[in-house]
Amino acid sequence: MTLPRPSGIATLLTDFGRQDPYVGLMHGMLLRAHARAVVVDLCHGVPPQDLAVGALFWRSALGRFPIGTVHTAVVDPGVGTARRILAAVAGDCYWLAPDNGLLPWALANVELQELRQVDLGRLAMVPQSRTFHGRDLFAPLAGMLAGGRYGFQALGPRCVDPVLAADPYAGRHVVVHQDHFGNLLTNVPAAAVAGCRRVRLGDLGIDVVGSYAEVPVGAVLALVDSYDLLEIAVNQGSAAQVLGVGRGAVVTVEPGESP
Amino acid sequence: MTLPRPSGIATLLTDFGRQDPYVGLMHGMLLRAHARAVVVDLCHGVPPQDLAVGALFWRSALGRFPIGTVHTAVVDPGVGTARRILAAVAGDCYWLAPDNGLLPWALANVELQELRQVDLGRLAMVPQSRTFHGRDLFAPLAGMLAGGRYGFQALGPRCVDPVLAADPYAGRHVVVHQDHFGNLLTNVPAAAVAGCRRVRLGDLGIDVVGSYAEVPVGAVLALVDSYDLLEIAVNQGSAAQVLGVGRGAVVTVEPGESP
Amino acid sequence: MTLPRPSGIATLLTDFGRQDPYVGLMHGMLLRAHARAVVVDLCHGVPPQDLAVGALFWRSALGRFPIGTVHTAVVDPGVGTARRILAAVAGDCYWLAPDNGLLPWALANVELQELRQVDLGRLAMVPQSRTFHGRDLFAPLAGMLAGGRYGFQALGPRCVDPVLAADPYAGRHVVVHQDHFGNLLTNVPAAAVAGCRRVRLGDLGIDVVGSYAEVPVGAVLALVDSYDLLEIAVNQGSAAQVLGVGRGAVVTVEPGESP
Repeated sequence: MTLPRPSGIATLLTDFGRQDPYVGLMHGMLLRAHARAVVVDLCHGVPPQDLAVGALFWRSALGRFPIGTVHTAVVDPGVGTARRILAAVAGDCYWLAPDNGLLPWALANVELQELRQVDLGRLAMVPQSRTFHGRDLFAPLAGMLAGGRYGFQALGPRCVDPVLAADPYAGRHVVVHQDHFGNLLTNVPAAAVAGCRRVRLGDLGIDVVGSYAEVPVGAVLALVDSYDLLEIAVNQGSAAQVLGVGRGAVVTVEPGESP
Repeated sequence: MTLPRPSGIATLLTDFGRQDPYVGLMHGMLLRAHARAVVVDLCHGVPPQDLAVGALFWRSALGRFPIGTVHTAVVDPGVGTARRILAAVAGDCYWLAPDNGLLPWALANVELQELRQVDLGRLAMVPQSRTFHGRDLFAPLAGMLAGGRYGFQALGPRCVDPVLAADPYAGRHVVVHQDHFGNLLTNVPAAAVAGCRRVRLGDLGIDVVGSYAEVPVGAVLALVDSYDLLEIAVNQGSAAQVLGVGRGAVVTVEPGESP
Repeated sequence: MTLPRPSGIATLLTDFGRQDPYVGLMHGMLLRAHARAVVVDLCHGVPPQDLAVGALFWRSALGRFPIGTVHTAVVDPGVGTARRILAAVAGDCYWLAPDNGLLPWALANVELQELRQVDLGRLAMVPQSRTFHGRDLFAPLAGMLAGGRYGFQALGPRCVDPVLAADPYAGRHVVVHQDHFGNLLTNVPAAAVAGCRRVRLGDLGIDVVGSYAEVPVGAVLALVDSYDLLEIAVNQGSAAQVLGVGRGAVVTVEPGESP
């Protein structure tokens, strides 16, 4: 098996927000481990402890970064406990996260080339706090991987029993996230609306179109968005505000025509 | 004609906010196109679809980055339609934006050394989505320019008819933006208040001073700010809150004395 | 005396927020001074003009960045006046800030190896504005230091009389900051709660534990956090919301047992 050659690029996904120095300190510790690392903030706007949105956001990085990028996600309600740290190889990149279900959820649709559990003892790593392993463990680990200081296999033994998280919306078509524009992201995959011209959100029928500007300014529309998911939006407006609905709202896909 | 040598530095200006991974994914795609690019977030706080504030913010980058920097702005209500993509050389830098009026507005006061429209066919670029050309087109284009992979002239033919946007406040002196501190930025250029000691905001007369701390804490003041525009502020406070006014509020410049 | 060798890394701490281009322009000017600088946003969420939170955040960078990092803090209500600019060497790094008390406050617990006041005349630096010295002075200074263009001693003469700020909470144990998660950070040092099992916040007794997950989801807890300070939190919730208290709330440490 060949592992991707580290690119020196490391991304960070967290629920830390940016109003505190938590993210900046992760950059610092990553640079201490690998001074020439290029650190990219994938996103720090995951709602606190929200694994579902974390998985949605993290998955979006697949195929969008150079081969050999180290992706680290810290959404970590179990910080300071004995929960393990996972490291994976998938989609030509490295992935680091707490063992709480986030990693298998985000990477559910791609092959996990390898999955290991980090052996902190073997790496002689001791966290300085019990509340901020992003700074104390994840950032240094990401730096070491990104710089090629440790090979992936040196991180620890294979993991065969990662924690799996339950998707609260499994088997249902619902709104799962409201983005900065007030667009309503659903968990309906593009394939499920192929050939479909109309969806329903509660009682409201909504035309499926190709781009925002195909309807008048202020009108409601549905389209397949950049996550390859069905999205309900308002052209140059906020669907969340206009429609007054949010996460969990049920979406119905009307049968499409045969292609 | 000599074009500036690409510096490897690329800036991003958008209305995407930072709570979603949209900006992070632009970094990723830019690094895929040029792995050694240095990507700077100029600002992602442009109000959604707001070309006026976008132009104000983008213009502020003139002369503040190394020669050969590639500046990309994505405020793009027409994403997914046939609207063109523009590329310009001005102020010793490169500028990329949708053809919706933003670019000519931002660069109105400097010479456009060249203006081209990007020929995606010639570059063999096909967007993967119809909602996120920032990720699919602008970031890769910025990376290719920043890395010198394509010369500027290879992007496409000259453009002689860029879309022009109408300034809703043309010919009027008004507040155009409220910043993070609650400072009220106006569209009154520094030259218009040279020698002027007092301005009016509605009924309120306000002294023009040189720096915030020239008036007591909590007092209202006017000064020429770092945009070279008249700004109305409160020393260590929020003018927007104290005065209860915002965008569109009329400003009157009282005649100055002869110098 | 040996000064740390500049690492090329520069961090920025400000109260500018990120909705305006102010931070992006500091990156630009820093890169103009040193094109290969690596610029890290430590944090831009300091509340406007808040030296206490600024000092708390800035101090957190001690020991978390590579040796020779240049740390710049701009919380600067006196911008545009004759207030001086300070430069220090401490903790194997460089520190730049306005002379308003922030620097000595942040670095109170470490040795200041050197403290100088920047002589702008000697460096031939003239700010282009009287409102944004972060862009006009601090960023170029940081770039020059980070790139080794000027040695530290060339910045100006030694400073023996830095402005000192008064800590409004000196001698009292109180909540000093509410973070993104709603955790209540106090000014109680870890040493003051060694061996202590319980603290009081107003009338409420709170158990001191080791990590968030040691209490049930939704329960209130106290622990020593990553600042090495006592923090009051709710497991997977917001202590600020649940308890309805904020900055200034009094904390009482109950006597610990002898170790």
